[in-house]
Amino acid sequence: MLLICNGTHSKKALLSDPQLFDAKFEELVTELTERDLRDPGLADALNRLREVLNYNVPGGKKNRGLSVIGSLRELLPASQLTQDAVQRALTVGWCIEMLQAFFLMADDIMDASVTRRGQPCWYKRDGIGLDAINDSFLVESSIYRLLRRQCRDQPYYVHLLELFNETTFQTEFGQTLDLLTAPPGQIDLNRFTLERYKAIVKYKTAFYSFYLPVASAMYMAGINSEEEHNNAKHILLEMGEFFQIQDDFLDCYGDPAVTGKIGTDIQDNKCSWLVVKALQVMTPEQRSVLEVIFVLERFHFSKNHLKDLIKMVQVYLTVLQHRQITICFLVWVSPPTKEKVFFEGEPGQCLLQALIRQFLYISFFPVR
Amino acid sequence: MLLICNGTHSKKALLSDPQLFDAKFEELVTELTERDLRDPGLADALNRLREVLNYNVPGGKKNRGLSVIGSLRELLPASQLTQDAVQRALTVGWCIEMLQAFFLMADDIMDASVTRRGQPCWYKRDGIGLDAINDSFLVESSIYRLLRRQCRDQPYYVHLLELFNETTFQTEFGQTLDLLTAPPGQIDLNRFTLERYKAIVKYKTAFYSFYLPVASAMYMAGINSEEEHNNAKHILLEMGEFFQIQDDFLDCYGDPAVTGKIGTDIQDNKCSWLVVKALQVMTPEQRSVLEVIFVLERFHFSKNHLKDLIKMVQVYLTVLQHRQITICFLVWVSPPTKEKVFFEGEPGQCLLQALIRQFLYISFFPVR
Repeated sequence: MLLICNGTHSKKALLSDPQLFDAKFEELVTELTERDLRDPGLADALNRLREVLNYNVPGGKKNRGLSVIGSLRELLPASQLTQDAVQRALTVGWCIEMLQAFFLMADDIMDASVTRRGQPCWYKRDGIGLDAINDSFLVESSIYRLLRRQCRDQPYYVHLLELFNETTFQTEFGQTLDLLTAPPGQIDLNRFTLERYKAIVKYKTAFYSFYLPVASAMYMAGINSEEEHNNAKHILLEMGEFFQIQDDFLDCYGDPAVTGKIGTDIQDNKCSWLVVKALQVMTPEQRSVLEVIFVLERFHFSKNHLKDLIKMVQVYLTVLQHRQITICFLVWVSPPTKEKVFFEGEPGQCLLQALIRQFLYISFFPVR
Repeated sequence: MLLICNGTHSKKALLSDPQLFDAKFEELVTELTERDLRDPGLADALNRLREVLNYNVPGGKKNRGLSVIGSLRELLPASQLTQDAVQRALTVGWCIEMLQAFFLMADDIMDASVTRRGQPCWYKRDGIGLDAINDSFLVESSIYRLLRRQCRDQPYYVHLLELFNETTFQTEFGQTLDLLTAPPGQIDLNRFTLERYKAIVKYKTAFYSFYLPVASAMYMAGINSEEEHNNAKHILLEMGEFFQIQDDFLDCYGDPAVTGKIGTDIQDNKCSWLVVKALQVMTPEQRSVLEVIFVLERFHFSKNHLKDLIKMVQVYLTVLQHRQITICFLVWVSPPTKEKVFFEGEPGQCLLQALIRQFLYISFFPVR
């Protein structure tokens, strides 16, 4: 599936999108550090930027970034996709990866995280510390440098600027809600409602992970209407919510041999779907026990008690969970109703397929 | 001078620009927290945003923000300045104040500062800590929310978006250079060159404090040509450099009764104009002494030794300093040459006057 024709009409050997995407990164780093600002007085700062970009941007699974070119190929016939358009889609894809890197660098500082993507967090490296805050700003700003240098003459330029600004704001609002909901050492179970959970997921994850890549491709394909974007947003945000619920579920029940990580959401008192759902179905007695455990935990009592209790409640939930997965999935793949709601006619069908493919891809490679 | 006609053609009592500007802030906070995103799930986050804006944005001298409406009044005849245009200029002025607040909130964390504008730094407040990083992001994003909500239909909208993005990047580059030049505890006098000093001042301060407000007003007045902006940039960046040199000079020699602060640049090992100039005119013997003192200081020897030595060297410099001030000032106010270089004809003269007035205003109220 990854070895799609790249539609570039060039005589070079055809490369898959992931290969094209990887190759593009180096070029963009060169663009930002050697061709953009050439003031010799900035040489040290440009070297720092190169180091920051190379350490923080390319190490993820890149499914968000790849979604831009992937969606664009679904939205435009190959004949309309020029080599330049492909290159710009790769650039915009990397802009999304940079937006994510900016958030993660800052989140890691705020959460006092130690590792990220199998290496020490940037701020944890020798001699970096809180200077990483400014480094994260440089990564964010690089997005707008690239958009300006590579998309300024395109009719969708201002749409992309607004989309990235809006998505940034939404994600920061999600982080604000998350920080307010679970401040370290001050867990209040009354804050862990399903409503709050959904708001955090929507703002902190779904907008930038799901709507942003597809919306970018839509604008690049000339699809500007507010109605079409609202339709896409509606379904993509639902997909984002589902993705996060699945991610939370796998954090506890996934096989580390498959997911590649040992989840710690429960130990970290995260406002995860599991604890929210558990609170919904608990008896008042169970809830009292949980509250006592949270209080005891504040005094470093025992984390295993908490984990055991939530796991016990989860036995009931597994059935519910499976039912929910099935329902969600049926809603999304059921064409007769969804197509109608979502889009009418040719481009709609095309986008719907793109979304479902995207969805399967991301479900298969869950990240963050 | 502050009681300028506000050109609004309204029947309300005429207010000065500073009064209009102050009144605008409350309105913008309401706009951002009550009229923009209305999702009830965001209520807590919107309350946080209000608190963050009120604490961090309005406490400065506001000369950068006021420069936008001030410059616009110089660039357009009163008859062309509608009430709406005035209101938009006030909004853009507050966007500049928000950009500054964003930088200062983050700089304070990176520098481990304690107070700012006579109150505790935001991150130092109870229960805030490193969550202040995300709060600073919210302030930055608010700029683009306001521009979108209030300037989207204006022909200069995309110019302002690019200008703010570019200025943000430049300022972050300036901060990068500053952090690389004087990392805490690792002072290397070889890095304190005049060339480096000028680069830091230009990028970290001059672009956002001097070019940004005037360039915003130029775009709002319909002045878009690259040539005119480059001319303005040239002189404004020189003004910025001069302003910073004066600020550095006053940090050491200013009368605290007049400046309102007791300078600590020397004690803090800042790459200030004083130490850079002192290094330029020192004998090799004096430089050796200084280097020894820096090493000793790393082991908490004595800060007064350093201060005394630099003050001694500064005796020679005072003459040079006064000569430099005179030269700079003559160059800027001398119309026959400068007008030619800068602008020709009516709008040029007008802008030149605006710049000089601006310069005198900011020189009179030095900030940051």
